[in-house]
Amino acid sequence: MEKFLITDQWKIIEEGFDPARQRSSESIFSIGNGHMGQRANFEEYYSGDSLQGSYVAGIYYPDKTKVGWWKNGYPEYFAKVVNSINWIGIDIRVNGVQLDLAKCDVGNFRRVLNMKKGYLQRQFTAELNNGDKVQVQSQRFVSMSRNEVGTVSYSVKALNFDGTIEFCPYLNGDVRNQDANYDEMFWAEVDQGLFSDGAFVITKTKKLDFHVAAGMRCALTKNGQPLDIDSDFNVEPMKVSQQYSVTVKTNDEISLHKYVGIASSLNHERKRLHPYIEQLTAEIKDLGFAALQQEQAEEWADIWNQCDIRIEGDEEAQQGIRFNIFQLYQTYTGDDERLNIGPKGFTGEKYGGSTYWDTEGYCLPFYLNTTDSRVARNLLLYRYRHLQKAIQNAKKLGFSDGAALYPMVTMNGEECHNEWEITFEEIHRNGAIAYAIYNYIRHTGDEDYLKEGGLEVLLAISRFWSQRFNFSEKRQKYVMLGVTGPNEYENNVHNNWYTSYIACWTMRYTLECIDKVEEEAPERFDEIRQKTEYTDAETELWKDILKRVYLPEEKSQGIFLQQDGYLDKVQRTASDLEENERPINQHWSWDRILRSCFIKQGDVLQGMYFFEHEFDEDTIRRNFDFYEPRTVHESSLSPCIHSVMASKLGYSDKAYQLYLRTARLDLDDYNKEVDQGLHITSMAGTWMSVVEGFGGKRARNGKLYFSPILPDHWDAYSFKIVHQNHRLKVSVEPNQVNITCERGESISCYVYGKEYEISPGHPLTVSGKPVAS
Amino acid sequence: MEKFLITDQWKIIEEGFDPARQRSSESIFSIGNGHMGQRANFEEYYSGDSLQGSYVAGIYYPDKTKVGWWKNGYPEYFAKVVNSINWIGIDIRVNGVQLDLAKCDVGNFRRVLNMKKGYLQRQFTAELNNGDKVQVQSQRFVSMSRNEVGTVSYSVKALNFDGTIEFCPYLNGDVRNQDANYDEMFWAEVDQGLFSDGAFVITKTKKLDFHVAAGMRCALTKNGQPLDIDSDFNVEPMKVSQQYSVTVKTNDEISLHKYVGIASSLNHERKRLHPYIEQLTAEIKDLGFAALQQEQAEEWADIWNQCDIRIEGDEEAQQGIRFNIFQLYQTYTGDDERLNIGPKGFTGEKYGGSTYWDTEGYCLPFYLNTTDSRVARNLLLYRYRHLQKAIQNAKKLGFSDGAALYPMVTMNGEECHNEWEITFEEIHRNGAIAYAIYNYIRHTGDEDYLKEGGLEVLLAISRFWSQRFNFSEKRQKYVMLGVTGPNEYENNVHNNWYTSYIACWTMRYTLECIDKVEEEAPERFDEIRQKTEYTDAETELWKDILKRVYLPEEKSQGIFLQQDGYLDKVQRTASDLEENERPINQHWSWDRILRSCFIKQGDVLQGMYFFEHEFDEDTIRRNFDFYEPRTVHESSLSPCIHSVMASKLGYSDKAYQLYLRTARLDLDDYNKEVDQGLHITSMAGTWMSVVEGFGGKRARNGKLYFSPILPDHWDAYSFKIVHQNHRLKVSVEPNQVNITCERGESISCYVYGKEYEISPGHPLTVSGKPVAS
Repeated sequence: MEKFLITDQWKIIEEGFDPARQRSSESIFSIGNGHMGQRANFEEYYSGDSLQGSYVAGIYYPDKTKVGWWKNGYPEYFAKVVNSINWIGIDIRVNGVQLDLAKCDVGNFRRVLNMKKGYLQRQFTAELNNGDKVQVQSQRFVSMSRNEVGTVSYSVKALNFDGTIEFCPYLNGDVRNQDANYDEMFWAEVDQGLFSDGAFVITKTKKLDFHVAAGMRCALTKNGQPLDIDSDFNVEPMKVSQQYSVTVKTNDEISLHKYVGIASSLNHERKRLHPYIEQLTAEIKDLGFAALQQEQAEEWADIWNQCDIRIEGDEEAQQGIRFNIFQLYQTYTGDDERLNIGPKGFTGEKYGGSTYWDTEGYCLPFYLNTTDSRVARNLLLYRYRHLQKAIQNAKKLGFSDGAALYPMVTMNGEECHNEWEITFEEIHRNGAIAYAIYNYIRHTGDEDYLKEGGLEVLLAISRFWSQRFNFSEKRQKYVMLGVTGPNEYENNVHNNWYTSYIACWTMRYTLECIDKVEEEAPERFDEIRQKTEYTDAETELWKDILKRVYLPEEKSQGIFLQQDGYLDKVQRTASDLEENERPINQHWSWDRILRSCFIKQGDVLQGMYFFEHEFDEDTIRRNFDFYEPRTVHESSLSPCIHSVMASKLGYSDKAYQLYLRTARLDLDDYNKEVDQGLHITSMAGTWMSVVEGFGGKRARNGKLYFSPILPDHWDAYSFKIVHQNHRLKVSVEPNQVNITCERGESISCYVYGKEYEISPGHPLTVSGKPVAS
Repeated sequence: MEKFLITDQWKIIEEGFDPARQRSSESIFSIGNGHMGQRANFEEYYSGDSLQGSYVAGIYYPDKTKVGWWKNGYPEYFAKVVNSINWIGIDIRVNGVQLDLAKCDVGNFRRVLNMKKGYLQRQFTAELNNGDKVQVQSQRFVSMSRNEVGTVSYSVKALNFDGTIEFCPYLNGDVRNQDANYDEMFWAEVDQGLFSDGAFVITKTKKLDFHVAAGMRCALTKNGQPLDIDSDFNVEPMKVSQQYSVTVKTNDEISLHKYVGIASSLNHERKRLHPYIEQLTAEIKDLGFAALQQEQAEEWADIWNQCDIRIEGDEEAQQGIRFNIFQLYQTYTGDDERLNIGPKGFTGEKYGGSTYWDTEGYCLPFYLNTTDSRVARNLLLYRYRHLQKAIQNAKKLGFSDGAALYPMVTMNGEECHNEWEITFEEIHRNGAIAYAIYNYIRHTGDEDYLKEGGLEVLLAISRFWSQRFNFSEKRQKYVMLGVTGPNEYENNVHNNWYTSYIACWTMRYTLECIDKVEEEAPERFDEIRQKTEYTDAETELWKDILKRVYLPEEKSQGIFLQQDGYLDKVQRTASDLEENERPINQHWSWDRILRSCFIKQGDVLQGMYFFEHEFDEDTIRRNFDFYEPRTVHESSLSPCIHSVMASKLGYSDKAYQLYLRTARLDLDDYNKEVDQGLHITSMAGTWMSVVEGFGGKRARNGKLYFSPILPDHWDAYSFKIVHQNHRLKVSVEPNQVNITCERGESISCYVYGKEYEISPGHPLTVSGKPVAS
């Protein structure tokens, strides 16, 4: 864990320039707007170590699979997030010497991510090797209200010289991915050239023919006054640049505003990209930097008004939770059902393909509770659009008749992953996708979604499960062989309780939904029946499986069994591990990890979390007491689920301790890997720990429940919930809980099990319970 | 299956030139002498598709591991068999036109591998695009009596022209491996230059600094008469060539003899390679081609006299078995304990590293029965030399105190393989290495080997097993979790019967050997005790494991259980599969294969084969009857073991049918992959099917047993057995078996269970039993 950032309620602040930390800070200070994202690379040339990253949502590259030993069923390609046209670049020369922070004396370096207003700011002084000193200030953001707009303000002040400062803003499409499997260049030239007072570059991916266009127009000021001087343009293949040469005297400050439009063939006809970008850049240049920044601040104010969490008495926690919310909204805003949430968002290349079950398991609840339900709906539609691909994927593995297996990792619905024990076996992901439909409906009450796409998805997943179980003559039970549960520290196990349970749950829920749709919309049901060739007969098998399924338990201990052989392992707890063995994934061989009883992330307990309402508290407690001590939480997705459950069980110290492991994971770089990008999806888990954990928020049958506790370390906290047409603010103070209805009509909800009616203007106060210990 | 070869008792013959088959024929017509090997690439330039392969035993390259998803414990490198200096090359120009079989009219093409005398012959006519016709004859071999010598005779006859023929023999070290993981060049320049009348090239591997030197001297004849003309030498980096320009008239035939020496730093000081190769080539040139060929024929006559198998009434079978014996002796001759037997020998690059458990499981019995016991002993010493590496390997995985895990694939004792379910889990290989010691001693009676190295190896392997079992509190038994048995169509299973059985057997055998060595050589035992830090106390754990081990069985069916979950699978037999589904490894996804009950190669039955003497025939029969029908024999190592067992159980049709699947595997290219190289190690399995299977040969407590059957399709057959100081010839005819003692004193052996004494000059004839049905 490293504390190199300054704590602040609304800002992430780094002071002092440390080249060894450059990659990490590039991740942490990333900016995005759900449609594009940009690592905190420097605008000016930088010869030091860096991971350049400019990403455009939905644009990817099918990189040829890298594999040691091929297995039938593996995909040919891994869809990679692509580093795209560099649009932030502004090279600077001072009296002919290039400004390069790796090669000059840097002072007063300060980098600030302003989360309240949504921009990145940097300042420093630099003494070049010719003795010239400059002071630099830059600001940039990608616009939340204009998806295709990014803008940079870059100022250089001459501190001790008279002379010339050259500004060379550019767009460079000749860029690469550092994680390309075979050092392949992903981009090819399409076009580049000039507008009346700007320039553009259009490149395309060498496969799939995605086109990306970037255009720029710039404006200069000198000491705050517009400066109209000539500039030279330079056009090379895949690159355009502009060169301004400004004469300065000591203390003159020259500012460049760079207005950039970035658009892709995802949203525009290829041939329209050029005129579109020409017009867009003209518009935003007309508006000007200040107006765009004002818009940006207003947009973020709206978001914070809807989903801010305030924590009092613990500024680090406050900064951490806001950072997580901020990054989630920078990654996904939910207005395009073709997009999704990659584990690293727009902050790094690693893990390539964008969508894992993290979306359904972790991110969906966040968006369900913090914004309009249309956002969560788009996340469901994303999977619905991929249904045929999921059916093809299952077919490739040998399944039939419209069974669907959703991919482990995907961009366009095709599987990207190639590791048999995950690709073929970590199939519980299919369950999470079914569960998301249920989760969405229980929050929103939008049962119509079943008719639109939900039922088709559920049918196809249930079909998969019914084929994936097989009947064991020996046991006279249905078993599920060869799976990997959420605990990836065990592979290819038999009868993983979680997977079998969620499979059964899916079939049960699908049966219910079939009845519902058949009854409520018989015509639509007939359409679905025809389209899917569904027959009543096939549900008989599902019912038989539900009747005769084998779900492993250890009755003597009153627990569900993670998998058939779990209790054959030597039983130890994480507290038996030496400090220098942890994390075991960095200190133990894979062989040793696999045969140990240690659990990477909740497995039985993931099931208890999803299906809490199907188990009594004693059962949950016994399973928690057994499994949590065996869990090493070496997935960023692990502590949050356990923290929520610990809160529920009244283990408030444990809940807080687990919360701490997730809250500032990236800010404090717990896992020493933030240089590769942020853990975007696990950020939603932190939100869960607060709202569902400490806040005890639940939604069931359209009703809201709260049972807040107040962690000892906090003076008070509050969070907001969007529920159907309502927005509630829940404030938890020592000895009392206040709930305000900020939007919508009056609503009833349960606090500590008792029902209350809350109306706008009439906050509810419930006294007594909140202190944790 | 493809029949493109002509059947012959002693020769492999191909007629007609088919470029599409070039790679396959290059494999089949490979030559070798245990120290080097050469694919049947053409001497003259060939622009068509080809896999160039000149291999030097013991020279390898650590190629950077290629892996999709890294797991702790994986090796950094995969040791690759290296394509080394091309020494056969002779470019030909006829009146200035290059001879290239891909670019001329080829007629009367015939390629012959003479197995009786050990050489490769080729002839063809070619009409070049200028109309000139030539007839070409070539012969080549690598000398069995001179490890470092190869020689080529290459004749060109002018059929329809007067003019000039240029001969350009060369040595070219600028060569690559086609299977290099990252297209890396493995070789670097060391030196090249001229002798008085020859030339040399020395190259070295870029890693590990292996040096390989090749030298050549040539001689010409014209119509059989020595032709002394000037030639030009050309020296380039890594390449030397010589150019003869010969004036010919129609019907003149020019022959070039190329005498090549190839030596490596494995056997010579680096700086001595140059003078050594200079002298060696002078010597062999003095001797001349005919004399070298005579030596070669004599050497092969000796080998055939020792180990030939004759089959009467089935010429294809005769050709097949001789091909297998021939290739085995071309691959490994057993005079250097640093060498071993790669799955593809010197016939291809694939599978890289040279040693798998194939050596102990399949090849050792072949060499134990067909040649001096020193050869088998060298195979054991190879592993003894690698013991410290095996201990390091186990340590890397988390084992301690001198436990050894031998690698799955290796060149120098270090693990090369990187596929967790194999590398970390297919640990039964360790058992085969222990079993080889037992097998060697039961054949040779050489118990001294235990003192020399055997006991240390056994101790280290038993230590591994004792740590690899763990005590299950739940079962109150020792279990072995997370292993892959010989059946690689199931991975990461628990309590694989074969692995657990061979583990227990190892510990039992080690305990016996400890007692034996302690009693017979107490001083040596004390040395071993000190060196290994062995204490009596640790055997207590072994004994406890032997007492309380869990070995899965299915009592209701009287069978051992392949692994815990095997009977939870849907039970089918291979006969239920459609023709178009087989082999399943080409038609099914890996997911489907893993979850099916189908067995790739004997697993429980591999144990029955090794430990036949520990089970009664009914037990073996019940297990065979259960498992064989579920076995798809998709490993080249599978049918032979089952054929041996079927013979034993009196299932002679089954035995013959399984034998057929192995006998001509490569000649008829059953698996459509002979282009990549021959299945050298499985060739020993074919030998087993005949000698141990049909011949019913066994060795037990120093005694020999035979129970021959005669397959319906054969008129008669005979084989030879080297046993201690004896050589026996066993001839099986309808209704009688003849056994002749060809070498050594009189010996007693059992035929159909009855003991006989056989003396030299007094063949034994036993009547009555041999007909199979």
